[in-house]
Amino acid sequence: MAEKKPDKKPEPKRKNGVNVDALLAAREALKKAPQAAKFNWRAACKWQNGTHSRTKVKGFHGLMEEQNHKTEFSFDADHPEIFASEDLGATPVEYVLVGLASCLTAGVAAVAQNRGIQLRSVESQLEGKMDIRGILGIDSDVRNGYDDIKVTFKIDADASKKEIEALVAQSQKRSAVYDVITNPVNVTVEVA
Amino acid sequence: MAEKKPDKKPEPKRKNGVNVDALLAAREALKKAPQAAKFNWRAACKWQNGTHSRTKVKGFHGLMEEQNHKTEFSFDADHPEIFASEDLGATPVEYVLVGLASCLTAGVAAVAQNRGIQLRSVESQLEGKMDIRGILGIDSDVRNGYDDIKVTFKIDADASKKEIEALVAQSQKRSAVYDVITNPVNVTVEVA
Repeated sequence: MAEKKPDKKPEPKRKNGVNVDALLAAREALKKAPQAAKFNWRAACKWQNGTHSRTKVKGFHGLMEEQNHKTEFSFDADHPEIFASEDLGATPVEYVLVGLASCLTAGVAAVAQNRGIQLRSVESQLEGKMDIRGILGIDSDVRNGYDDIKVTFKIDADASKKEIEALVAQSQKRSAVYDVITNPVNVTVEVA
Repeated sequence: MAEKKPDKKPEPKRKNGVNVDALLAAREALKKAPQAAKFNWRAACKWQNGTHSRTKVKGFHGLMEEQNHKTEFSFDADHPEIFASEDLGATPVEYVLVGLASCLTAGVAAVAQNRGIQLRSVESQLEGKMDIRGILGIDSDVRNGYDDIKVTFKIDADASKKEIEALVAQSQKRSAVYDVITNPVNVTVEVA
């Protein structure tokens, strides 16, 4: 209804640090080259002692060639002292929360950028409920993993509550880790 | 068939660094106190810039009280440069592989200890296939997350190939993260 004011200054670009133009260009390019969209993500784990392990992440495959992170990332995992372990790293199930939190957060930033919403802060608290009678083999009706995970976002942005909720919903809709956790993935475990 | 030799020295305890006695005692205790087996694992994430976030892990709830790791663990996550990001951390989907690798590896150590098998080395390679046309919204038939994850263990232990395969199978059977990835988990995402 409002007429465009020709003398109005162009809206300043939102600065969320996400290069949405590059992502939209990639989307166009991969529409025509589906083979390039096939990625392999990798990790290499070495047992240290007890329940302590170290997992390294460096190379992956995508865009039809081998790729590398700028640096190698290394992650120690362990069980806590109340499980009679040394607590030399986060627990494996906490790493799953890290993956979920970071995936949804990156999505919020990307969607905000695409929708012209300036983010000021994005924080989230995650809580996963787990009954450890499952992993201890006490009751076969109790699952090993999480029963339920709750993610609570607190977002300060140049947008209404409704727009912020829509941001989070769209991030969830396109989140790789949310999909992995909420839907079954085929996992094969072999001994070489 | 072989008769027990009464003068045979007691078998030396295997040293895998897992306190199996404590775990078995916990199993007995939690059989009688199911409430103590209810754990909440937590993570707190803060957006940094672009697709870069930092997630911290410190407190959790279990054995009917608040617990803390000895130290706070902090994890940077980001997207790689080929996604027009700064590659300041592992990707969210790689964190899922870290969780899976470390969960199965801790399980292998615990089961080996329980079965009296001495481990010398446990290594694993993980590869997760993902078609990024899903997260880019190119094709709604392509899922966002992994299609398929393959874990390959290389284990050097005082045991036969068959015993080693049985170790890995038992670890898989009791793995929390394997369960989370292969079976659906209910995840709620809210904006506070």
